Order: sequence, then C-alpha cells, then structure tokens
Amino acid sequence: MPELRKDPITGRWVIISTDRGKRPMDFVRESVHIKGNPAICPFCPGNEGKTPKEILAYGRNGGGKDTSGWTVRVVPNKFPALGIEGGLDREGEGLFDRMNGVGAHEVIVESPDHQKTLAMINEKGVEEVLWAYRDRMLDLKNDHRFRYILIFKNHGEPAGATVEHTHSQLIALPIVPNRVREEVDSAKRYYEQKERCIFCDMIRQEIETGSRMIIESDHFIALAPYAPRFPFETWILPRQHSSSFENMPAPYYAHLARVLHDFLGRLDAALAFPSYNYVIHTSPIGEEINDHYHWHIEMMPKLTKVAGFEWGTGFYINPTPPEEAARFLREAKVPA
Amino acid sequence: MPELRKDPITGRWVIISTDRGKRPMDFVRESVHIKGNPAICPFCPGNEGKTPKEILAYGRNGGGKDTSGWTVRVVPNKFPALGIEGGLDREGEGLFDRMNGVGAHEVIVESPDHQKTLAMINEKGVEEVLWAYRDRMLDLKNDHRFRYILIFKNHGEPAGATVEHTHSQLIALPIVPNRVREEVDSAKRYYEQKERCIFCDMIRQEIETGSRMIIESDHFIALAPYAPRFPFETWILPRQHSSSFENMPAPYYAHLARVLHDFLGRLDAALAFPSYNYVIHTSPIGEEINDHYHWHIEMMPKLTKVAGFEWGTGFYINPTPPEEAARFLREAKVPA
Repeated sequence: MPELRKDPITGRWVIISTDRGKRPMDFVRESVHIKGNPAICPFCPGNEGKTPKEILAYGRNGGGKDTSGWTVRVVPNKFPALGIEGGLDREGEGLFDRMNGVGAHEVIVESPDHQKTLAMINEKGVEEVLWAYRDRMLDLKNDHRFRYILIFKNHGEPAGATVEHTHSQLIALPIVPNRVREEVDSAKRYYEQKERCIFCDMIRQEIETGSRMIIESDHFIALAPYAPRFPFETWILPRQHSSSFENMPAPYYAHLARVLHDFLGRLDAALAFPSYNYVIHTSPIGEEINDHYHWHIEMMPKLTKVAGFEWGTGFYINPTPPEEAARFLREAKVPA
Repeated sequence: MPELRKDPITGRWVIISTDRGKRPMDFVRESVHIKGNPAICPFCPGNEGKTPKEILAYGRNGGGKDTSGWTVRVVPNKFPALGIEGGLDREGEGLFDRMNGVGAHEVIVESPDHQKTLAMINEKGVEEVLWAYRDRMLDLKNDHRFRYILIFKNHGEPAGATVEHTHSQLIALPIVPNRVREEVDSAKRYYEQKERCIFCDMIRQEIETGSRMIIESDHFIALAPYAPRFPFETWILPRQHSSSFENMPAPYYAHLARVLHDFLGRLDAALAFPSYNYVIHTSPIGEEINDHYHWHIEMMPKLTKVAGFEWGTGFYINPTPPEEAARFLREAKVPA
C-alpha cells in the first residue's frame, strides 16, 4: 500500500510508493559528463572579456580585473531575467498588480577548470564558492529595492543548465518568492504556538529516528525529508538554530563545505553523476535574525520526468521512499 | 525592462520578459506525432484483455464488457499510484502525519483510434470524453473516503505520457491537493470581502481588456492569464459563475467540447503539435456548490525545460508575455 505523507513545514501531501520503490538503477539516467571546448567557453580563464565586467573575484594574485588567475569569479548574467536599473513603479491594473522587473542576476563561476564539476572541486574550493554567495548577498542587501536574494544551481542540461562550465546563479528580487514566504510564515505560526523552531524539532526527531539521515557532522546534517517531492531529494541544514545563511559565524562555511562536498560525492556515486538543482532558502531581507526560520539547502536530483501535473496541483508522486534514498546515499562508496 | 506580475488568485509573482519575448518559433519544439503499433497497444480495440476490467464504456452497440466497439473507455490504471482497498489509518509519527495511500487511479481512453490525438477527435468525441470525466467523478463521490477527484492529461512524452494512445487520467484522493486548497481559500477570502467571485471579476475585466482573450463563446472563454507561469499557459473557464465541473447543466458539456476542440486545434497550429498537460480545477468534495470558487481547466504546453528552480522557489520566469501568446493563438490558422 502506498503512503500519503505530509510535510510539516509546507503542509504539502505527497504520495510515496513504499511497496515497489524505485532504486537508483531503475531511473533512466542521463549522466552529466563534461565535454565542451574551453576555447569558446565564456567562463574559462583567458575569456574574461566574453562576460560582462566582473563583480567579484577570489584568488587572483596581482593582475587586473577581468584577467585570468582567479579561483572563483562573479559576473552579471549576460542575459539577465531582471534589469538592474530603475525604480519599481508599482502599479495596479484593475484586479492585477505589477511592478518593473528590477533585480540583479549574477553568475558565480565556481572554478577556473572547465573539466570539473562542483563535486570534483576540493573542500577548500567549495568553501570559496560559499563565501562568494555570502559576499554577494551581503553586498546586494545595501540596495533597498530588494526583499530577497536567491542562490540556486542548475547542474546538467536536464536541470536547465545552458553553460556546462560549473556555475551557480544569484537573483536579487523586490519580492519574496511564494515558497519561501509560505515556509517562513508556517514556521512563524509554529513558533507562536510552541516557542520552538519547527526545523529544530524536526532535526532532533530525525537524528533520533536515524532512518532518513544521510550525513551527520557536528555542525550540519544532510537528510532525506519525511515527505520528499522527488526521489533522492535532500535537505542540508545547520544542526543548531540559524536563521540566515549569510549571517553564520565564519568557521561555519568550512563546515558546510565539508558536508556539501561529501554529499555531492555520494550523489554522483549512488546515481551515476545525475543532473540536479539546488536552492538556498534563507530568511527574507529585513527579518534575517529570528527564532522561527531555519535556513537550509534543498537539493533536487533530476531523475523523473512528470512535471505539468505537479505544477497544476502541487501534488507529487514519489516512487522512492526517503528511507531507501537515505540508505543508498549513506552506503554510497565514493572513490578516493 | 522585464515585468513582475502577480496572479490575483494565488498571490504568486512571475517574471515576464516583455522586451524580447519568445515567439513560437523560438522554442525548441519536439512535436508529438503518433508512431506506435496498435497491435501491442493496451488501449486499442481488440486488446481489451490487456487492461484491468473496464469501469465504464460508451458507444458499444451490444457486445459484452471488455470487448471492442466502444468510443470512450475507462479502466483502472494498471500501475496505480494509490490503492483502492482499505481504510485511511491516519497516524502521527512525532511531528509527521501520514495515512494509507488509499485512492482510485483510472485511465480514460479518449478514442479507439490509435492514430488520433485529442485535438483530432471531433467535437462530439471530445464531448463524450467530458461526459466520461463527469460520470466517473459523480460515481467516485459515493466513496466517503475521498475528498478530491483530479482529472489530468499528459500529452506527449516530454509532458510525462508513457502510453501514446490518447488518454486522460483520474486520481481520487483522501485529501485536497495544496494548489487547489490555496485557490479555493483565496477565492473565499475575496468573496468574504467583496461578495463577488474573483474569477467572475477577472473574466469581466479580461473580456473588456481583450488583449489576453483567445476564444470567446457564449458559455466559455479561453484566455492567457495575466501572470502565467509558462509560455502559452491558457485557462478555459465558464463565462457565468459555476463552482464545479461535474455539476454543470447537461448542454454545457457540448459547449465546453466546442471550445476545447477549437483551442487544441489552435495550439497545434501555433506551436506545431506541442506536448502539454492540463488539469481540471473543480471545488473539493462536500463544498461543490458555492459562490466563491469558479472551476476551470489549466492548460500548460511543455515548451521550456527549467524546472528545479521553479520547484524550489515557486518563482517562475516566463519568456513569452501572455498578450503575445494570446495573439498567436487567436490568429492561428487551423487547417480545415
């Protein structure tokens, strides 16, 4: 008998096939392998002139802006979804509301090496990427038009990546995305009732239960959520309460890099280099420090095709129980 | 400058690229063309024994159950997402809630002809499909375990169809899907404030504005919503207030069939036989007759790939303004 499970934070129900759960081998897998030609890649060293002028770069030992020698480099997206200039010009149009599409859209190039995926970069390199996320978030908060800064990564073409050189993206928005607003509001209601963070409660219960745990370090955990929408969906959360990614104490970025690096290696080993998306959910701007919301990374491997039905209903059918997904990822043998 | 637009019903904001909107030719189009071999198709006449025992069939002039001669046929899904037997056994597990995955999962085979898509069936045939939806919904409501009956269609492999013979699906659920619950609750709040249905208000405004209208008949309209998530997303709604699909007066199914048939022809003509999903949003069981919710069909052509980002945020970037999409569909030349 399949199971209906409810996510305690969003209130979303999902159908979990518990009987004949799909194992890693059962998915049609399109492995992500790097094949491109660095000579024409706009994110490769030597091609800095092919991107808009850089906003941030780490690792360059001397040498000017927009030259090679960097380890992580942030540039504006050449085809931005939002425009950086101008005011919001909020307007009504009868029933409807609109504003100008004002925002920032940036690309974080995670490594100069075209041949590497994020999973192949060492911990130190992953830590630099996390610092770049943080630096850009803190800087963009000075722009008072913005209410949310969204970090996300599309890895592999099936997950929406259009350039294969490893990169993440950042979008600064004048509004808070729906899903984040729902999570924050729901966590707030829980806190008002119980004076506890719902994520902290969940983490305590998951550590005790154990069956959905993937990685447990002193500072971060990776777990398969109780009611995942997708096979092998994974959340990475700070173990202690922390309401915003960008306000963590400095040593935590190295701790997080270790867990993220470990997780991506397991994902590649268990699912043969799958494409995936991840998103950082942090508190909205202006409410960064709070007791109710717990920032986290949501990691969604792209293994199944069904889509429009889920979009139309918010209703998900997941063929892999999270307990099995967690076990596969726990037991994954990462080549040394 | 792109635009941020808010859907008045769900409160969801989307980014609409107004400058360099994508026209039909700009999408990588994978046309859906029927190629299969009817001899091995479980939905073809003569192969009735390859499906579970039929639940409903129209058009058979004499002849027994599970024989050929039908025009529309409804059977249980051979690989159901939910199980039909047993109780719900609602249970808590600390923070978490679960129940048995009890429900019905049926397939509506829309035509005996393997070579036809729904768009190629005549109006009378489309009307029969709509009657089958209605008959199954009314019948399943007698089962008091169910709270919602969801009709949806996946057309083409990119939209999640696994069998190419034209069909829709039905899932009866012991819970109301999130997206439907949100829409109904939001419409209810609007009604409490204004004593008007928000959909009725929107329809009035859209008919007056005209720029997003696609088809306008006496009883139904097809329009591009103001804040669509996807290029060429279209809603089909009854013009007069009607809270549930399955409780419409009998003549309306023929009216709806005419508009649906017309729309699918335009979609094929404008976008070269795209894959698509549609979903019927009707009122939940037990609250069918109300003044606040307006049932409708949400039609989502599958033209873009980006997915995980949208799933993680509820935030959509749509490269085609609905005014342009509506114009293309209005002007589409359907071959006679």
